[in-house]
Amino acid sequence: MRPFDDTYFMKMALAEAALAAGEGETPVGAVLVCNDGIIARAHNQTERLNDPTAHAEMLAITSATNLLGAKYLTGCALYVTVEPCVMCAGAIAWAQVRTLIYGAPDLKRGFRKYAPLSLHPKTIVKSGVMEEECAGLMTAFFRSLR
Amino acid sequence: MRPFDDTYFMKMALAEAALAAGEGETPVGAVLVCNDGIIARAHNQTERLNDPTAHAEMLAITSATNLLGAKYLTGCALYVTVEPCVMCAGAIAWAQVRTLIYGAPDLKRGFRKYAPLSLHPKTIVKSGVMEEECAGLMTAFFRSLR
Repeated sequence: MRPFDDTYFMKMALAEAALAAGEGETPVGAVLVCNDGIIARAHNQTERLNDPTAHAEMLAITSATNLLGAKYLTGCALYVTVEPCVMCAGAIAWAQVRTLIYGAPDLKRGFRKYAPLSLHPKTIVKSGVMEEECAGLMTAFFRSLR
Repeated sequence: MRPFDDTYFMKMALAEAALAAGEGETPVGAVLVCNDGIIARAHNQTERLNDPTAHAEMLAITSATNLLGAKYLTGCALYVTVEPCVMCAGAIAWAQVRTLIYGAPDLKRGFRKYAPLSLHPKTIVKSGVMEEECAGLMTAFFRSLR
């Protein structure tokens, strides 16, 4: 039995996404994991901070590098509920995150469309972890705006 | 006579880049301009903040949106000494910056290589403003590291 698997950490990212939804933010959540321990949790705060750069991934990376006192996250895994955008993919590349695991694809704004080669060449990417739950939060949020 | 032209604002960005160099940071500087007035100035602070996301453009965008209390910079021009990376291009897109003016190209890490279509479709791009001075600061910096 392995309690700390991809599903476990994606559930933590989903809990962050749910917090975002409750605050009227686009429901994306992220956690950064190092040696099976969560070192940063964040959710989208672009509305609260009036800052278009305040995506969950950016906040998690800034928080984790601050905690570790290091610019690189080469031993870390980033769990994020939705495929990162170009900006976040660029940040993930600079931080040299070892593994990127995301839930739902973002066909409109995801990095795979605009910058498929932007990640660090050593970064491993997994997708589709709890995809339905991750996408469901986004669908419900955008439906509520209409 | 037009005192506030591209050269004028690029000189302000260069002054920021020179500050970065003096602090041992990669010498990139940026200013955000709205109605011929500078509303944000920033330079690279990745070393000081231990944060791979602390590029000049990111800090300038966060600072300007904070000042204006708005998530978008549709009426603004961003002057930056070096071609933005993928992360910064993504942020410039989210902020819907109207005009991007950069000095020197970055053939290795610039967004034009990895994400040429990542900017907002309405964003106007100019390059080569004071290119020699902008590139010169970078060359001198990287030579000093060897």
